[in-house]
Amino acid sequence: MTVATGTLAERYLAVRSLTEQLAAPLSPEDQCIQTMDDVSPTKWHRAHTTWFFETFLLKPHLDGYSEADPLYHYLFNSYYEAAGPRHPRPQRGIISRPSTAEVADYRRWVDEAMVRLLGGEVPRAVEDLAILGLNHEQQHQELLLMDIKHVLSCNPAKPAYRTDSRRASEVSESGSVWIRFDGDRQAIGYGGDSFAFDNEGPRHEVLLGPYELSNRLVTCGDWLAFMADGGYATPTLWLSDGWAAVESSGWSAPLYWNRTADSWELFTLAGAREIRSDEPVCHLSYYEADAFARWAGARLPTEAEWEAAATTVGAQPDAADANLLPAGALHPRPAKGDGLEQMFGDVWEWTSSAYSPYPGFTPAAGAVGEYNGKFMVNQVVLRGGCCATPAGHVRATYRNFFGPGTRWHFSGLRLARDSR
Amino acid sequence: MTVATGTLAERYLAVRSLTEQLAAPLSPEDQCIQTMDDVSPTKWHRAHTTWFFETFLLKPHLDGYSEADPLYHYLFNSYYEAAGPRHPRPQRGIISRPSTAEVADYRRWVDEAMVRLLGGEVPRAVEDLAILGLNHEQQHQELLLMDIKHVLSCNPAKPAYRTDSRRASEVSESGSVWIRFDGDRQAIGYGGDSFAFDNEGPRHEVLLGPYELSNRLVTCGDWLAFMADGGYATPTLWLSDGWAAVESSGWSAPLYWNRTADSWELFTLAGAREIRSDEPVCHLSYYEADAFARWAGARLPTEAEWEAAATTVGAQPDAADANLLPAGALHPRPAKGDGLEQMFGDVWEWTSSAYSPYPGFTPAAGAVGEYNGKFMVNQVVLRGGCCATPAGHVRATYRNFFGPGTRWHFSGLRLARDSR
Amino acid sequence: MTVATGTLAERYLAVRSLTEQLAAPLSPEDQCIQTMDDVSPTKWHRAHTTWFFETFLLKPHLDGYSEADPLYHYLFNSYYEAAGPRHPRPQRGIISRPSTAEVADYRRWVDEAMVRLLGGEVPRAVEDLAILGLNHEQQHQELLLMDIKHVLSCNPAKPAYRTDSRRASEVSESGSVWIRFDGDRQAIGYGGDSFAFDNEGPRHEVLLGPYELSNRLVTCGDWLAFMADGGYATPTLWLSDGWAAVESSGWSAPLYWNRTADSWELFTLAGAREIRSDEPVCHLSYYEADAFARWAGARLPTEAEWEAAATTVGAQPDAADANLLPAGALHPRPAKGDGLEQMFGDVWEWTSSAYSPYPGFTPAAGAVGEYNGKFMVNQVVLRGGCCATPAGHVRATYRNFFGPGTRWHFSGLRLARDSR
Amino acid sequence: MTVATGTLAERYLAVRSLTEQLAAPLSPEDQCIQTMDDVSPTKWHRAHTTWFFETFLLKPHLDGYSEADPLYHYLFNSYYEAAGPRHPRPQRGIISRPSTAEVADYRRWVDEAMVRLLGGEVPRAVEDLAILGLNHEQQHQELLLMDIKHVLSCNPAKPAYRTDSRRASEVSESGSVWIRFDGDRQAIGYGGDSFAFDNEGPRHEVLLGPYELSNRLVTCGDWLAFMADGGYATPTLWLSDGWAAVESSGWSAPLYWNRTADSWELFTLAGAREIRSDEPVCHLSYYEADAFARWAGARLPTEAEWEAAATTVGAQPDAADANLLPAGALHPRPAKGDGLEQMFGDVWEWTSSAYSPYPGFTPAAGAVGEYNGKFMVNQVVLRGGCCATPAGHVRATYRNFFGPGTRWHFSGLRLARDSR
Repeated sequence: MTVATGTLAERYLAVRSLTEQLAAPLSPEDQCIQTMDDVSPTKWHRAHTTWFFETFLLKPHLDGYSEADPLYHYLFNSYYEAAGPRHPRPQRGIISRPSTAEVADYRRWVDEAMVRLLGGEVPRAVEDLAILGLNHEQQHQELLLMDIKHVLSCNPAKPAYRTDSRRASEVSESGSVWIRFDGDRQAIGYGGDSFAFDNEGPRHEVLLGPYELSNRLVTCGDWLAFMADGGYATPTLWLSDGWAAVESSGWSAPLYWNRTADSWELFTLAGAREIRSDEPVCHLSYYEADAFARWAGARLPTEAEWEAAATTVGAQPDAADANLLPAGALHPRPAKGDGLEQMFGDVWEWTSSAYSPYPGFTPAAGAVGEYNGKFMVNQVVLRGGCCATPAGHVRATYRNFFGPGTRWHFSGLRLARDSR
Repeated sequence: MTVATGTLAERYLAVRSLTEQLAAPLSPEDQCIQTMDDVSPTKWHRAHTTWFFETFLLKPHLDGYSEADPLYHYLFNSYYEAAGPRHPRPQRGIISRPSTAEVADYRRWVDEAMVRLLGGEVPRAVEDLAILGLNHEQQHQELLLMDIKHVLSCNPAKPAYRTDSRRASEVSESGSVWIRFDGDRQAIGYGGDSFAFDNEGPRHEVLLGPYELSNRLVTCGDWLAFMADGGYATPTLWLSDGWAAVESSGWSAPLYWNRTADSWELFTLAGAREIRSDEPVCHLSYYEADAFARWAGARLPTEAEWEAAATTVGAQPDAADANLLPAGALHPRPAKGDGLEQMFGDVWEWTSSAYSPYPGFTPAAGAVGEYNGKFMVNQVVLRGGCCATPAGHVRATYRNFFGPGTRWHFSGLRLARDSR
Repeated sequence: MTVATGTLAERYLAVRSLTEQLAAPLSPEDQCIQTMDDVSPTKWHRAHTTWFFETFLLKPHLDGYSEADPLYHYLFNSYYEAAGPRHPRPQRGIISRPSTAEVADYRRWVDEAMVRLLGGEVPRAVEDLAILGLNHEQQHQELLLMDIKHVLSCNPAKPAYRTDSRRASEVSESGSVWIRFDGDRQAIGYGGDSFAFDNEGPRHEVLLGPYELSNRLVTCGDWLAFMADGGYATPTLWLSDGWAAVESSGWSAPLYWNRTADSWELFTLAGAREIRSDEPVCHLSYYEADAFARWAGARLPTEAEWEAAATTVGAQPDAADANLLPAGALHPRPAKGDGLEQMFGDVWEWTSSAYSPYPGFTPAAGAVGEYNGKFMVNQVVLRGGCCATPAGHVRATYRNFFGPGTRWHFSGLRLARDSR
Repeated sequence: MTVATGTLAERYLAVRSLTEQLAAPLSPEDQCIQTMDDVSPTKWHRAHTTWFFETFLLKPHLDGYSEADPLYHYLFNSYYEAAGPRHPRPQRGIISRPSTAEVADYRRWVDEAMVRLLGGEVPRAVEDLAILGLNHEQQHQELLLMDIKHVLSCNPAKPAYRTDSRRASEVSESGSVWIRFDGDRQAIGYGGDSFAFDNEGPRHEVLLGPYELSNRLVTCGDWLAFMADGGYATPTLWLSDGWAAVESSGWSAPLYWNRTADSWELFTLAGAREIRSDEPVCHLSYYEADAFARWAGARLPTEAEWEAAATTVGAQPDAADANLLPAGALHPRPAKGDGLEQMFGDVWEWTSSAYSPYPGFTPAAGAVGEYNGKFMVNQVVLRGGCCATPAGHVRATYRNFFGPGTRWHFSGLRLARDSR
């Protein structure tokens, strides 16, 4: 199931329902915890996505709509300065009320109104906002899973988000293969007429030299070799800010790796388990990805190289084997073939590209113009989606971004190099 | 009802039941919030007091006792170094599991075992530990109320802990009266044979000059006069560290005072309401109490002066009009008479005494020796109990203590001066 | 006088002598002060540039060279991990010894040895390192001036670095003019055979759309209009991280602007004086430059646009009117004409380009490879040099970089926009 | 030579001259360094003590006195709120100007005026202020030495304040002896008619139980035994705040102890040298002193016990063998006899007494009333002076005080215990 089928109201209900399914395994207490500034409580995600529809769709566009609670406008605004003052982000975890039950009521209240709104004749501008709202909610579905993973990992009991009955298949680690691309003049960025975020455009041409990408993601086995070679103890492998982060944060492995007597254990959404050498390494900062690439005598791809390669080979996010949210793994899986594998799903791939506006970029008008543009500094672009990305959400042109020192997202890397 | 009646098992169940009654109005979400390092979640108080009985009573003294959950030993140890490593205090609010329901199970599990233990023949040492555990739980009952007040106050909705149908009676502010005491050689400290904390002894003599105490607590009306006279803007009224706290914290009124258009509003456990000029001012730091006394041309009493006065006039914490927890006000009340009023209950009264060991003080042996002694630095003594202190808990010799910059407890002051 | 004339030894002595001239007005106390982590004491700059020659030239390449003092190797290493452990940067200001006199001795010791080394037959690799060392010292000449400006500005007496007898000429503010460039396929980056830093290459082609640049820098008059229009109080003008910086740092004007009764005063290296509306605004963060451009309905140029424009019009850093260090102004000056003015000198111009490696970039081998590459994250590129840049140091391809929140450098901006 | 001889003007010049002698070995750079908030630059001490005379003596009491520089009033006020705004304490190290030479001029300017003032007929109030100023300057003489020791210790070269040609005599460590005191009713506090600080009075009676003091200070040998027994790794030996300090600061030995291959080295004002087991341990926090006493099965004395003992045995600070500043050791020396040794000089002795006002304490009127009273919280009393205390400065009633976590002063301890 993807966002693209059914009427707009049906698509609306499908997306909204998925959020509730994702929250379902969590207790009221689980849903109100914030373990670091970057993490939001589950309950907050459920309310904030609802606030988005209420603020940008219902209040301006549904006659007779009655606001659920005036305080929610303050509590559940994330960062929209144009929408007024808001509750401070680091204090989302101290809000016991509204309760999870009241948040569920809020969702129902807004859903009923939205169905009313979308059931009538819908002007194009409203439809666009609704579709933006659905894509926004999908982003928060992924964030909800990232965030609750952090929350549960901080609990000394290391509880699982859900149990996982799958047995690990036999490990069959094969070497990686370089795949060559000619580069030259390439068009990147979204130019179609379906939905895309404003930061994906305008479509424009770039010049690329010939380059090569690894056919698969870097694995835990690769990472263990980096660690064994002193990767975390060799400052010359690191960017200066990266080395400072290693020292101040005491990093000696990716996030969620815990040393056991003779190996490493991984905390996953299915609880703690042994590491598999053939699965993609995950929960890396940009600094770590960059240092690994340097150690490996390679580099990270630029976002243009990544996009041009995905387009060239015709990689599709809705391929049957794409490890996105519907696959149910909630963790990256080993590569299977020799083609350009794992481009979509598994882990968000760090590129070497700073998150900057494309030439000619203009943010949308109004408060939703704050959606992307104002974050275009101090961030790095990631591409391709991950095992927590909802169906129908990611594209070849999709630009995700995080600060270079963050690690709680499902992030990994693929190596690149210049081609002679 | 006080701790002093019934069999030990009955007293045990009465105290334990009161904790559950105090938590009853709170949702699971309310019970897992920590709004600052000093505050513990309600759920944690309920579990930690249970851990105390499990660790110091059941494990060493009840044959065949089976530990509820080994992880609880780590999670719910507060500060007992001798009892092993423990969960960091500032992170008590990120523990969604065990849930409130599981904590209730934990309490039942331990209660059943405790009733077994106390139902048999109980050696004196075990009885002493049980009574210590009950007094410990009473301290946490008060802390639970202080802490949840802070939690609720941080919520923009300012929800009430419980509604309060009492109408404020007519304000009838009368002036205060000085009451003289001769001082001289006075015995202070606990010397009886009922329960008292180790820090209340040994009983010993001190020399006091003649002094006077105000017959009543300082009121909100008094405090408004201090504020109107620039009290919070006059550095020479303050201790050096106090003035630094005013500047760095931006204090301009007691905690929980919020300015309205033309007056001040108070956040109470019954929600926000207008201030009453005749009620005792509450939620002060030591620095504020000290500065007020200097402004008033007076000083704070020493703890010895307070105790000698209470003993001299025969003030009793179980007097009918004492505003302790059973009175149900959960807020200090105006004074009614001309005697030495409000010595017990209403607000903890800041003294000028640093929290130091009495001559000859020796902590109890074993882990419970960490109960008091190790905090005897950087703290100031408060006396007399407050509106959240359980019945039977406070005494004339009782020494409470907090850091001089803290304000979230029910703290106020009574003026003193030398007598000519 | 520029680096480019004379024998290598003569050029060496000329550059070294300029450093001492710049330090000459400063007392021993002035020279050992560090007012923030980013600032280094004058004495440290004098010693560190000397350390560079000693470490990378004399020790490996001059037979019989005897190290001045083994401790200096620790004290005066800036950030070269490959050169061993080093004194922490934020603690450069607590080193009273070696004294300024001993640092002068150190410089002489190394200069004598360098003259010996450069007087003989010099292998190409050594010559390259010597030229790198001279360019390195020129960078520190500029830093020395930036840093001492901050040091003196923190002194309540606001002392001048040197007096300035020039009278401000009449203000004649003229409007700015847009100058159009075609863009398209443009080669940027250094491709010549003289000296350039590794980060300036490889030369490569980029695609640019048609664009326009303002003929002059943004002025203080422009900036006052931005401020008068609430520029510092309008969050929607700012990048998210920029607005956070405004709020946490309390910015309401550029660095070194101080409000007077009816206007603004500027702290300059010649002391405090009134602002001139026609002089370029200076000491801006990237966040401020970006917000101003948004407010003005324009944007910042990319570094490729800046370089292509400079090349197109044939702007030269050694033009007679370029306001670089030899001009002696030590402050930006008003524009005079209608052409593409002020491209070199006056202020470093913020571009919108994140500081990233050019395609095919490879750092130099060995410790000097740490010179540039490891800083290629979290920084923004500035172009064109400033009034403190030594002669012969800057080029059209020169890439300077600072963090987006820093302001103590001589930084300003020039507006750009897409051309229809 | 002590303050007590000669005319007031002669005494004035003697004290002022000693300050200059103490600063003489230090370069201008040495004199402007601040290595932590607690430390002030030498130059600042020289200027602030001068400011004291200018502000409290010359401006109000010398007709026609002309202020040296209005800015100095801002720069060199330490903490007198009543004297107006002042330069922030943590930024004393960024003031390169006035230079050391200008500060010397300032001192001469004020000295000449003071001699004029004191040469005439001097009212009693002025004389009292002058004597206060001299005692104030003596305190800063000691601080100057403490502070410069910290400054020099932070320099990787570990330079000596002055060389020390004395050879260590043979170590002859003898055991300590307990000396008994009856206690009972004892008068403490200053009651004479010479100079004493306001915090030393009023004289009053206290009740003491019988107690014993060790005849000598705790030695480095004793301390090594504490360390060998895991003193720094045993939380139950420590106050709760003390253990937090051990963990957060990483303490594993007293300040200025540096581990060598097989022993410990000490940084002294004469440079680094081997430890001597029989010399008093020095540079301890209160937390360390308290933990040691607990480990030793003893306790610290109260300040009343210390003073009563000193008075009982007739210990005198001007005894020939007192190791105060004139002795020239600048470091504590081993005890020599079996009496109550080392009561004055060597190290300030931590007591267990919080720094509180004596009964009936009233600060002096006016700005000098801020001298002591406003620090009476969060501090602990030390007694007896140290090897850096000027002659004639300390008394049996003298109350020094520092925060419990500070260690840069010459502080040690003497054990006490209850007597049966």
